[in-house]
Amino acid sequence: MRNGLKIAVIGGGSSYTPELIDGLIKGQHELPVKEVWLVDVEEGKEKLAIIGRLAQRMVYKAGAPITIHWTLDRQAALKDAAFVITQFRVGGLAARIKDETIPLKYDVIGQETNGPGGLFKALRTIPVILDICEEMEVLCPEAWLINFTNPAGIVTEAVLRHSRINKVIGLCNGPISISRGIAMALNVEPARVRIDFAGLNHMSYGLKTTLDGEDISRRVIAMLAGRGEDGQTIRQLTGVEWVPEFVEALGVIPCGYHRYYYQPRTMLAAMKREAAQTGTRAEVVKRLEDELFALYQDSNLNVKPKQLEGRGGAYYSEAAVQLMRSIYTDKRDIQVVNTRNQGAIAGIPDESAVEVSCVITREGPRPLVMGELPVAVRGLVQQIKSFERVTVDAAVSGDYRTALLAMVINPLVPSDAVAKQILDELLEAHRAYLPRFFGD
Amino acid sequence: MRNGLKIAVIGGGSSYTPELIDGLIKGQHELPVKEVWLVDVEEGKEKLAIIGRLAQRMVYKAGAPITIHWTLDRQAALKDAAFVITQFRVGGLAARIKDETIPLKYDVIGQETNGPGGLFKALRTIPVILDICEEMEVLCPEAWLINFTNPAGIVTEAVLRHSRINKVIGLCNGPISISRGIAMALNVEPARVRIDFAGLNHMSYGLKTTLDGEDISRRVIAMLAGRGEDGQTIRQLTGVEWVPEFVEALGVIPCGYHRYYYQPRTMLAAMKREAAQTGTRAEVVKRLEDELFALYQDSNLNVKPKQLEGRGGAYYSEAAVQLMRSIYTDKRDIQVVNTRNQGAIAGIPDESAVEVSCVITREGPRPLVMGELPVAVRGLVQQIKSFERVTVDAAVSGDYRTALLAMVINPLVPSDAVAKQILDELLEAHRAYLPRFFGD
Amino acid sequence: MRNGLKIAVIGGGSSYTPELIDGLIKGQHELPVKEVWLVDVEEGKEKLAIIGRLAQRMVYKAGAPITIHWTLDRQAALKDAAFVITQFRVGGLAARIKDETIPLKYDVIGQETNGPGGLFKALRTIPVILDICEEMEVLCPEAWLINFTNPAGIVTEAVLRHSRINKVIGLCNGPISISRGIAMALNVEPARVRIDFAGLNHMSYGLKTTLDGEDISRRVIAMLAGRGEDGQTIRQLTGVEWVPEFVEALGVIPCGYHRYYYQPRTMLAAMKREAAQTGTRAEVVKRLEDELFALYQDSNLNVKPKQLEGRGGAYYSEAAVQLMRSIYTDKRDIQVVNTRNQGAIAGIPDESAVEVSCVITREGPRPLVMGELPVAVRGLVQQIKSFERVTVDAAVSGDYRTALLAMVINPLVPSDAVAKQILDELLEAHRAYLPRFFGD
Amino acid sequence: MRNGLKIAVIGGGSSYTPELIDGLIKGQHELPVKEVWLVDVEEGKEKLAIIGRLAQRMVYKAGAPITIHWTLDRQAALKDAAFVITQFRVGGLAARIKDETIPLKYDVIGQETNGPGGLFKALRTIPVILDICEEMEVLCPEAWLINFTNPAGIVTEAVLRHSRINKVIGLCNGPISISRGIAMALNVEPARVRIDFAGLNHMSYGLKTTLDGEDISRRVIAMLAGRGEDGQTIRQLTGVEWVPEFVEALGVIPCGYHRYYYQPRTMLAAMKREAAQTGTRAEVVKRLEDELFALYQDSNLNVKPKQLEGRGGAYYSEAAVQLMRSIYTDKRDIQVVNTRNQGAIAGIPDESAVEVSCVITREGPRPLVMGELPVAVRGLVQQIKSFERVTVDAAVSGDYRTALLAMVINPLVPSDAVAKQILDELLEAHRAYLPRFFGD
Repeated sequence: MRNGLKIAVIGGGSSYTPELIDGLIKGQHELPVKEVWLVDVEEGKEKLAIIGRLAQRMVYKAGAPITIHWTLDRQAALKDAAFVITQFRVGGLAARIKDETIPLKYDVIGQETNGPGGLFKALRTIPVILDICEEMEVLCPEAWLINFTNPAGIVTEAVLRHSRINKVIGLCNGPISISRGIAMALNVEPARVRIDFAGLNHMSYGLKTTLDGEDISRRVIAMLAGRGEDGQTIRQLTGVEWVPEFVEALGVIPCGYHRYYYQPRTMLAAMKREAAQTGTRAEVVKRLEDELFALYQDSNLNVKPKQLEGRGGAYYSEAAVQLMRSIYTDKRDIQVVNTRNQGAIAGIPDESAVEVSCVITREGPRPLVMGELPVAVRGLVQQIKSFERVTVDAAVSGDYRTALLAMVINPLVPSDAVAKQILDELLEAHRAYLPRFFGD
Repeated sequence: MRNGLKIAVIGGGSSYTPELIDGLIKGQHELPVKEVWLVDVEEGKEKLAIIGRLAQRMVYKAGAPITIHWTLDRQAALKDAAFVITQFRVGGLAARIKDETIPLKYDVIGQETNGPGGLFKALRTIPVILDICEEMEVLCPEAWLINFTNPAGIVTEAVLRHSRINKVIGLCNGPISISRGIAMALNVEPARVRIDFAGLNHMSYGLKTTLDGEDISRRVIAMLAGRGEDGQTIRQLTGVEWVPEFVEALGVIPCGYHRYYYQPRTMLAAMKREAAQTGTRAEVVKRLEDELFALYQDSNLNVKPKQLEGRGGAYYSEAAVQLMRSIYTDKRDIQVVNTRNQGAIAGIPDESAVEVSCVITREGPRPLVMGELPVAVRGLVQQIKSFERVTVDAAVSGDYRTALLAMVINPLVPSDAVAKQILDELLEAHRAYLPRFFGD
Repeated sequence: MRNGLKIAVIGGGSSYTPELIDGLIKGQHELPVKEVWLVDVEEGKEKLAIIGRLAQRMVYKAGAPITIHWTLDRQAALKDAAFVITQFRVGGLAARIKDETIPLKYDVIGQETNGPGGLFKALRTIPVILDICEEMEVLCPEAWLINFTNPAGIVTEAVLRHSRINKVIGLCNGPISISRGIAMALNVEPARVRIDFAGLNHMSYGLKTTLDGEDISRRVIAMLAGRGEDGQTIRQLTGVEWVPEFVEALGVIPCGYHRYYYQPRTMLAAMKREAAQTGTRAEVVKRLEDELFALYQDSNLNVKPKQLEGRGGAYYSEAAVQLMRSIYTDKRDIQVVNTRNQGAIAGIPDESAVEVSCVITREGPRPLVMGELPVAVRGLVQQIKSFERVTVDAAVSGDYRTALLAMVINPLVPSDAVAKQILDELLEAHRAYLPRFFGD
Repeated sequence: MRNGLKIAVIGGGSSYTPELIDGLIKGQHELPVKEVWLVDVEEGKEKLAIIGRLAQRMVYKAGAPITIHWTLDRQAALKDAAFVITQFRVGGLAARIKDETIPLKYDVIGQETNGPGGLFKALRTIPVILDICEEMEVLCPEAWLINFTNPAGIVTEAVLRHSRINKVIGLCNGPISISRGIAMALNVEPARVRIDFAGLNHMSYGLKTTLDGEDISRRVIAMLAGRGEDGQTIRQLTGVEWVPEFVEALGVIPCGYHRYYYQPRTMLAAMKREAAQTGTRAEVVKRLEDELFALYQDSNLNVKPKQLEGRGGAYYSEAAVQLMRSIYTDKRDIQVVNTRNQGAIAGIPDESAVEVSCVITREGPRPLVMGELPVAVRGLVQQIKSFERVTVDAAVSGDYRTALLAMVINPLVPSDAVAKQILDELLEAHRAYLPRFFGD
């Protein structure tokens, strides 16, 4: 393994893949990758080939000693891999479009991570990831599973509780994006800013911020509230408008997804407006992807195209490559990942997935102790964790009532009756991808 | 004390008081009350006198050796009391009407307990209850404080965390009403049914039901879901319609107030409809009270009038008298009260108030261990506990930002911007009763 | 079952059994027992018959409608039993004598419960109790298993963690004896005194004492310290001399077995002296038993003989009968038993056995919340719990190293080397009763 | 501060100081120290001057831009310090000799850290360290207090719970010595070996060992057990003989001080033998110190003398300088220190001191989550923590009974009566240094 690593990418035909290839090329001196195996399903065969060829051109152009393989044979890809990256979408963007549009018909936000849409994405994804885990046990038992597939926290929880794969990490570009945003607002090198993150995926809070190790949390909160010497920069960078006094009382940094919980009415109105004007986020993404694939086919293209940035994957490759590098080199730096809680955050079960600042070692992430979350945020985090756990139970059991329960307790869903309507319609819509509910 | 107890009733001019007097008369053989002191504020002077005279007629008619006093001098009432019952409403029903109507203007449920209305009721009530506690320390340090004033859970938490009075119990007729409803549906004596309740005030769940000690939880859930041999009786008795599969997956008995959290859209629509037609609940109650006081003035009335039942205080006197009796006689029976958690419910701070089944001894309530709440309900309970704790912080500090924070994290409030609007308008409306926010 | 209960007594040939029969006779009006099945092993056949016949004479004399059976067929005894009482001793007193004398050779206290002797008693007992549990699953799945066999805490823990029998209670006459001793010292009716006990079997502390519900803890501690108005009575009754200032600082009531941990040197000297003079406790008990069985054979004897009191089982029958009665009648009184912790005592795993005050219902014991033990006693309780858990692991696995580990971490054992010597010698001595270590 | 740091050393006249000066000289490029202030008490005036002059010669010889001050004026030394190092001994070695010899008269191990001797060392030390903390609040509120004075864990706990100084770290050379010993046995660079330590000072366990990030725990345990390819090297290096099967079952690395708890009889015999032959450890150290001071006075000596190694302070300077450097440079490497638990080790109060692997940042140590300790070691750790906490309570209150309680619950003390004898004799012996017990 030390003479060059093999990386398997499940969902390799994703439009994000060139981002990852770019990261692997740039990081090759610390992370000696020899082979990248891109794997996808029959329906994504063409896209996979487009991505595979672009990746080949990229490594060739860069002179990197990495060979690129693409295949529909997942087991061949997994065999002896050192890292397995999962970024697949069961049902593709078409399924996501349903996740978002069907709830909207009932005046409910779909939200593909911790909302009703996320519930269905989890129901489709978890059986597949558990299959992958079973194959990994045989084909690459020492490999690390790095999961990007959303809802990343729920998927990680499912692997932790329902597979024998312990080496699993859920990764999201959210925390790194916030850190970079703050560094940019402060006009300092990113490495000088460090934020203690704690919570769940798409539901984590920046508890404390340091600049060169000095606590600057108050200053950052003031910036988020649009006050203080630094002007409104962070608020502009994070793209969310908060009532200043609310952020000040909160005292910790919310992430972008907190809008869905602290501003659901505003978000619902915005989504309905968007859906009417430009289509849902999923539909917008679909158009972006079509444009990207058009570009990717250009046989003169041999670098990551600029346009990829619009897709929303900023820092995605950076997060992935940094993580693999720190594991490989036992670097012991601090990164924010989704991992087993083990007591890092008080009140969350030890075996549940949390998103938390960790020291990354060869043995994997070692969470820093965070203790109790602030009283005001503890409840919401617990509520989403309840939703996540019941969702995992529903995905594993294929039980209708459990799925309904998950839907009702989701804070975005306005009643048990509406929950049932949305559930029934989404179950029908995704029937082909829900073998545990409908049989194969 | 053993030769007859003194009971002080703060808010003695309440329309509920005849219910309490009736209970004390019926319970006199186990709870030897000698004096009842009804105390109220200047604005309630007239009502107090009406109630006082009715109470006198009631004890006279019953031949009970209880003397009735009514006074505006709280300290005289507290002096050497064995039990202090608090059922006062700062600002009266007029304030409650504002708590309910102002949020409704913003399409938000007011809800006088765990909603935005409850936040304001707590802000008005907590400074007063803490004053009472200070007086009790001096005038009746051995007395038990039995609080009925809503939001009862939040008020109890405030006393537990911010006064030196340890002998405090928050009481609600909710759990006893559910037990009685189930006994009625089963057509058995109430004493044969016992339910393990755990959670928070207006947010507790019936975890397990036994009939003569046999576990009949499944049967009760089936009844709530409208299925099974017993027909739809319980569902009819509890008055809430749930999607059957939801209740079955939940697996525990929700209380009436859970509608606000599992059916907020339905509830909002209903409240708006009611407001337009008959007025808010507060306005309806106001009319009921006016009618009751008209009755109470009739000098021929010397028993609790039938019409009082429409006021919603079923089992109120029963709960109060049973509790005092079990403390007084060290009876060690099981009752459901709001008390310090101390580990009874996992994941709630030891010092916080919970609503839980307790053995009632002379030393007070001793909670039964409940362990972990079911995963699906744990999150919502935590969220309301977050709201309750931040609300107490706001009430004690008089801090605007903290009050805003409480408002935003309340699950009924749809955005930080709307929270601020409601907060500002309610603060202004209740200015006279919020000395910690505006100064005296 | 309601027309008369069947009780199976495993180890029915014990000299204690007449005590139990006496209790069942006295309690027959609340606990309608129809049949008692005494069961024992081949080696105890004769004693079993002696006991069986005495029991028959006792019920006949009392005119109680109870039939007595005695048998070597355990399955016949278990079939449809409502309660299974286990009081057997694998290897009999001869084994206990080894448990006590072999450690003493190395200047180590044997101690048949939480000491090295208790380790071996557990290693012999646990495989048998787990067999009984397997039979109960089939023959009497609804029965309650009430275990008296020492070490009662460890045996209960083994059943809780390694069988499917959930209805298990470990019972000891220790707590009831202390309560009675205190009542006697105070010269009041036993029922007026209630003590909150919390800890482990033979390692529980009386946290708070009430008389008619009033807290008299300080007075009791003063009595234990030999101070105060009540003279030295309690100290005399409990039979242990403590340094007064120590008991005062401890602030809670230690049990008799605490001498082994707070006075090991004194106890070791006393045991060596006794062993030299009168034999170990086991040898003394052996002689007492021989005398008792001589008495029991007298066909004129038809009541529990006075001499049985010297055996050390005071309140044994009372504890057993009270417990069964409260379960049968759903009495909901407070008793001290060994049961699953579930959070009653902070810091002990939920699934571990603790000895704690419980409300006894038809569903079994419901622990009262005790919260954190006092800082000073928390450590010792944890240490014994560590020993208990590792002992269970050793008994179930039959692993030599694990047994050695249990021996070394026992606070009575003075070194790993001595631990190994004692372990090796005891393993050899008990070889016939340790199939998991040596094979059948 | 960035233009050169000031370091105050309380107990600057210690024989260890040249070790520290040597470390500061070697580390000067990462830790820019400008001034070192050595401070001591009147009785140590001469030794202080000897050390001060040697330190001056050392920095002069090394050409380091550090100025050395020595003074009896503690406040002058503290003023604006960046780091305050405490290594003072109240009563000097003469007191330690009493701590060790008086218990030995009663056949009890003295043990200057977690034994009866440690109790008295704590009683003498804690009032002084709390005085220093009060001065620091005024004179150098931003400074880090790095405490070497034993019992380091108890002293750290006292500061955490009874002062307003939050920036306190207890440091011990134990964990680093074990790591180095293992690296030496493996014949690899020390930096390649990392051990997860968790527990208390002089009571921590090496839970997991990695070499270049690979888990080699089993191999290390085998070495400790004297088995396996690597021969007996580690066992030889750590200097403790364990029964191999015990270490294997323990499964984690014990520290040298564990001998006192797992081999008390052996240790007592050894100490009595030593006391008879060469004197107690304290007496041996006294002689070593006399020899060292004779050397230190040699005005030609301008480096740390070889003989200092015999004193037992291996890696002392390295631990101290590494820690200060990592704080100063926000290095974020992993070191083992005594700090506030905050949830790192399950079952220990959040605010208590633990010894645990931490990431060292400018904000101080950030513990890694360790979760539950292995069952077998949990109890002993809790027992010592109980002792530590009660000891702190006794030191702060000056209460006789509390001190007795601490003595009785110490696992090395064989009875309450002997505890009282030792306590009384030690109190008398140290009367001059126990103002909280005897008044000034």
